[in-house]
Amino acid sequence: MTDTAPQDAARLATQLAGAVRSGDRRALARAITLIESTRADHRATADALLAALLPYTGNSVRLGISGVPGVGKSTFIEAFGLHVIGLGHKVAVLAVDPSSQRTGGSILGDKTRMVDLSREANAFIRPSPAGATLGGVARRTREAMLVCEAAGFDVIVVETVGVGQSETAVADMVDLFMLLLLPAGGDELQGIKKGIVELADLVVVNKADGDLAATARHTVADYRHALALLRHGDWRVPVLSCSAFRKIGIDTVWDTIGEHKALTEANGARATRRAEQARAWLWSEIRETLIDRFRAHPAVRADLARLEAEVTAGTTIPAAAAHTLLGRFLDQTGGA
Amino acid sequence: MTDTAPQDAARLATQLAGAVRSGDRRALARAITLIESTRADHRATADALLAALLPYTGNSVRLGISGVPGVGKSTFIEAFGLHVIGLGHKVAVLAVDPSSQRTGGSILGDKTRMVDLSREANAFIRPSPAGATLGGVARRTREAMLVCEAAGFDVIVVETVGVGQSETAVADMVDLFMLLLLPAGGDELQGIKKGIVELADLVVVNKADGDLAATARHTVADYRHALALLRHGDWRVPVLSCSAFRKIGIDTVWDTIGEHKALTEANGARATRRAEQARAWLWSEIRETLIDRFRAHPAVRADLARLEAEVTAGTTIPAAAAHTLLGRFLDQTGGA
Repeated sequence: MTDTAPQDAARLATQLAGAVRSGDRRALARAITLIESTRADHRATADALLAALLPYTGNSVRLGISGVPGVGKSTFIEAFGLHVIGLGHKVAVLAVDPSSQRTGGSILGDKTRMVDLSREANAFIRPSPAGATLGGVARRTREAMLVCEAAGFDVIVVETVGVGQSETAVADMVDLFMLLLLPAGGDELQGIKKGIVELADLVVVNKADGDLAATARHTVADYRHALALLRHGDWRVPVLSCSAFRKIGIDTVWDTIGEHKALTEANGARATRRAEQARAWLWSEIRETLIDRFRAHPAVRADLARLEAEVTAGTTIPAAAAHTLLGRFLDQTGGA
Repeated sequence: MTDTAPQDAARLATQLAGAVRSGDRRALARAITLIESTRADHRATADALLAALLPYTGNSVRLGISGVPGVGKSTFIEAFGLHVIGLGHKVAVLAVDPSSQRTGGSILGDKTRMVDLSREANAFIRPSPAGATLGGVARRTREAMLVCEAAGFDVIVVETVGVGQSETAVADMVDLFMLLLLPAGGDELQGIKKGIVELADLVVVNKADGDLAATARHTVADYRHALALLRHGDWRVPVLSCSAFRKIGIDTVWDTIGEHKALTEANGARATRRAEQARAWLWSEIRETLIDRFRAHPAVRADLARLEAEVTAGTTIPAAAAHTLLGRFLDQTGGA
């Protein structure tokens, strides 16, 4: 990505939008890299690109998939992706893993994962963007989802690492949030944080094969009992089982996703959910940018560390320290 | 509260601080009203008042008390307050009820509650501040807590309505968060939202008297079993029972609070918790003020409704709308 003068941003965005729309995979990857950039000139181009692509977005099934490490997420997504590609769809897999920067390499970005799926012309797999915060990772993933839709991908899978941080962010950007479970005891035993199961529109017990088949049946029965009253609008949350490894039950999962799509399109729930997600996205973008700009402001940076230390030591009232710093930041707005 | 010129703010604050420190109850009530005001000139005076009082704060036991409606919170707080006043303490009761504005009158502000306690010279009861948002109510309550401490109250009870919104905010401003339970089934049956029990440093089953005594024993045993592994640092969360109505077991609750205080003072956990709370308070004050000022900015207000409608309709990318509005707000900062 080379530096661009402001007047070139619109032209570059138009060119890139055309290439993305034509199905050029390198252009798609380049567009997502542009979106992930934190440089101000890249951001202007990214906004122009997204504006150009917007009319061609929204026509996909947006799926969130979560589950604890070891549940077989990669195996499931590969089997699932190959199944829906076989039905004529194009599948993009995006990851949300806010830990990927800290660990110096995301498990979700591992090139050895989903080998068969990654070879498919109708599949596109993108690891988690490097971003310091979950918010940053989430907003870039939302935009990458739109770019993939404009590139003709009609099934978008957004995957989380499933350790309790990112599930809410992913549930807030998809049409259907699916939780993968192990054939084992309750969610606490499986290490699933409280509140995550309630986010799910669909629960699937994986590894329902061989020695674990009977345990899987019990787990399905247990969760059906526990979730009997869990509804999202008119949708009653189903509990299914599958074996991603043996490719058993994947078709039922896809059919159930289709039922959810049909119901929520018919009753307006999908449109309402997407509208609410867009509004929440607007406000989170505003909030995060405001706080970023505040932190970066020279007059704030000059005293932030000292005032923060005084606040934690109890020698300055937090609100007073906030007002001091805010005064410096806002006084320059000339009456904001 | 009359309008004040900026130069009078410091003088007024000094006068009011002196009166609060001397134990003048009308000054205490007036100081809290000042803090709850949203007027800019009042805010400046409030900051000066809090700065003057700060050296005299921090010497109380800060308790959060929550429980679903019907659990007997008022009865408990009254019995508890009278018990600790009998031991020579001064008790302030503050409420956090973000719904009080919507319903046009807080149940927590009901004058008929805690009649005996409200007659005590060493008790001060303050209903929830009227505030549009939980954040606004919470920050005013944190400051009211400091004013009460400076006025010599050494036990501060912060009460929540217990319907799942405000518990986290209250747990984030106290030393010990207590959950009152009914003698009945599990927390789901009692209508307690997920995650609330995990916030508790102390669980107390109320109404352990008469016909309910046996049920209360079962509930205590059930929660002891369920919370056997729940620790906050070195503190293992106790499950007690009491009858606030018959004034049974209140002494044990207070003694247990004393054990928590002794342990967390000795191991530094209380100081660490207060420092973390102060830092979080600083950042929430900054975030909320930034977004308030953003919403109120004329150039933002001019187009916010239209852009928000476009975003929810899917005709404008949320990030692009955010950047448009942020540009107008931040461009006037001259390089923020």
